[in-house]
Amino acid sequence: MIGKVSYGGVTTPTGFRASAANGNIKGKNLERDDCGLIFSDAPCVFAGVFTSNVVKAAPVLYDMEIMEKGGNVMAVLANSGNANACTGAKGLKACHDIAAAYADALDIKADNVLIASTGVIGVPLPVDKITGIKEVLVDGLADDKGLDFAKAIMTTDTTVKETAICVETKSGLITIGGCTKGAGMIAPSLATMLTFITTDAIIEKHLLHKVLKECAEITFNRVTVDGDMSTNDSIIMLANGMSGAIVTEENYEEFKEGLFTLMDYLAKQIALDGEGASRMITIEVKNAATMEEAKLCASKIANSPLVKTMFTGCDPNWGRLMASAGASGANFDPNLTDIYFNDLHYVEKGIIIDYALEDKAYEIMKELQYTITIDLHAGNCSTKFYTCDLTQDYIKINADYRS
Amino acid sequence: MIGKVSYGGVTTPTGFRASAANGNIKGKNLERDDCGLIFSDAPCVFAGVFTSNVVKAAPVLYDMEIMEKGGNVMAVLANSGNANACTGAKGLKACHDIAAAYADALDIKADNVLIASTGVIGVPLPVDKITGIKEVLVDGLADDKGLDFAKAIMTTDTTVKETAICVETKSGLITIGGCTKGAGMIAPSLATMLTFITTDAIIEKHLLHKVLKECAEITFNRVTVDGDMSTNDSIIMLANGMSGAIVTEENYEEFKEGLFTLMDYLAKQIALDGEGASRMITIEVKNAATMEEAKLCASKIANSPLVKTMFTGCDPNWGRLMASAGASGANFDPNLTDIYFNDLHYVEKGIIIDYALEDKAYEIMKELQYTITIDLHAGNCSTKFYTCDLTQDYIKINADYRS
Repeated sequence: MIGKVSYGGVTTPTGFRASAANGNIKGKNLERDDCGLIFSDAPCVFAGVFTSNVVKAAPVLYDMEIMEKGGNVMAVLANSGNANACTGAKGLKACHDIAAAYADALDIKADNVLIASTGVIGVPLPVDKITGIKEVLVDGLADDKGLDFAKAIMTTDTTVKETAICVETKSGLITIGGCTKGAGMIAPSLATMLTFITTDAIIEKHLLHKVLKECAEITFNRVTVDGDMSTNDSIIMLANGMSGAIVTEENYEEFKEGLFTLMDYLAKQIALDGEGASRMITIEVKNAATMEEAKLCASKIANSPLVKTMFTGCDPNWGRLMASAGASGANFDPNLTDIYFNDLHYVEKGIIIDYALEDKAYEIMKELQYTITIDLHAGNCSTKFYTCDLTQDYIKINADYRS
Repeated sequence: MIGKVSYGGVTTPTGFRASAANGNIKGKNLERDDCGLIFSDAPCVFAGVFTSNVVKAAPVLYDMEIMEKGGNVMAVLANSGNANACTGAKGLKACHDIAAAYADALDIKADNVLIASTGVIGVPLPVDKITGIKEVLVDGLADDKGLDFAKAIMTTDTTVKETAICVETKSGLITIGGCTKGAGMIAPSLATMLTFITTDAIIEKHLLHKVLKECAEITFNRVTVDGDMSTNDSIIMLANGMSGAIVTEENYEEFKEGLFTLMDYLAKQIALDGEGASRMITIEVKNAATMEEAKLCASKIANSPLVKTMFTGCDPNWGRLMASAGASGANFDPNLTDIYFNDLHYVEKGIIIDYALEDKAYEIMKELQYTITIDLHAGNCSTKFYTCDLTQDYIKINADYRS
């Protein structure tokens, strides 16, 4: 049985502690924490999904190397304010130095420590600032500080994004916790998405990799658009086994449903908190000829600035939806296409049913969340993408990002 | 010898006349012309490049049918304020009715008349309004009204875009004239681009098609992004032969260079007048492994909202350029990549040369036009894309478009 997502975060599963501190990474003496530490009392099996960008930040290269080695992990050190990307060999050395310093303070091995960074690209990471607060972070570790960790990794995020879920299996109760940050314009995004997921399940490495990859594909990869990721995007998942409950092939689907529910919630929170966004829209493409075309079509609509500004103005300008679908690469007959705003049937066989429906569509578009469904009637493949509106605040945030 | 682009437009070549009138297409009694007519005193060979969007507007379907028939053309009727797209069978009938009315008034055959429309999608075209002013348009035809025609087809354009050029060949002097409208956010665009090109050259149909296609590929398709066109995008070119000078295989390259110069100028004007744009930026990708990857990389950068807002803020945030190139699908080694702002060498082997260069880069980014060059050092294929910055005005224009 899968519980509902509820209050909680990375320290909700048994045996995980966290902490946060202000390292003044940006050098602007902001009164907020910008470094966070997660620690597990027992060694963790580790799985990760990392950016497919050719330009990978140093912490991504560093974590991928640890993943390849295949050993266990006990801690994650994360910072905001600096992405440590496009920093060359010095950037990678920074990761090693930080891991060594924290391993020393935690009395574990350096390759038991993962690193994650988010913030501005191309600026050297202030290593001393991060290692200088290692005692504060290590001494501060507590099992109720998941929220503090989640806050410390925020950049232009306006809301903290964390949750936890329980999965009751024959083998016993398993808890999964997670937090994320994103806020960039998402699709089409180059903003960093960092996600940390913890669980107290006992699970073999290959199963953990499998379940994380499968769930990422239908959650975070439907927000950040596959293949269009930032230099730092990372989903890091740790399983410490301290619940005593085992995930096997037998209860795999149960565990996967729990993880999916958690990740789907977090992914939606990212879209809802898109930079400058005032609302989240689900783009559902139904009955495409192939799954590839369904994804192309949904992602094209979700990424179109003209569609996203139509959301901003609450204008049911369905012509932009038709034109965007038509430019997506999906094959379909426009004269068969249906469009719905939530349950409101708005376009039938490629033509608006009645302009009198505009007011009803306008009312739906004023909601904080709604769904637009495009039925292509070209096959039986369907998918969803999450997106947000494009507002003047987005421009303001990103034109002034470094000032 | 190719002349420079100069004052002039569609009526500059011998034998072309034009006119414009107010048809009140939007029904808002605006004090501006929204319908225009081009007429040639002699029958024209006709070539067209039309949108690759699956959803094609009625006038596009109509003109493509005429192009397939292969007959001559003598007139083009264009309107702004309504795209006649997503209007089904009625939309196509509207084109036939308008062509018949104007053919009657001009005493030519209906299939000698082309139609072009731009404006809002999904609203029935007010045929009566367009046919109701046929006497005004036909009586108004004059060889100095290219500018009036160019103004009538503007939508959110803030500048009129027209020019003409002379090509001196052994066979005699050839004149080419053209006008365009675009203004949509260009790359990534769903805004309509309409371009009308006239010439008094004698040229065979297959050569006219060839030269237009080749020039469109390296001009307008570098602005509007190949495969990502609106429902109405059209480039219509008419050649009436009235100069007496012939284009053959022998002087083909001369003629092509002239046409390229004209189309390149018009394409840049579109980028410069992108909705809400305050400046035009040329994205030059050098030394990609393949031409496909050069195009992918340049178009990805030109389309990135994060890059476009960096232009808005005049912020030389080269990390966004690196990240965008890395997400483009082009293969390259980030540690070999060079970036230039105009002639300023800014990034060498993937790392900024000196942060003291920021002020110089900032000065360049304040210019109305500049070029960013990304040298991937991965091969020998290079290309250019034209783009513009993304401003709060863009959001305002597109969120309020129909109100």
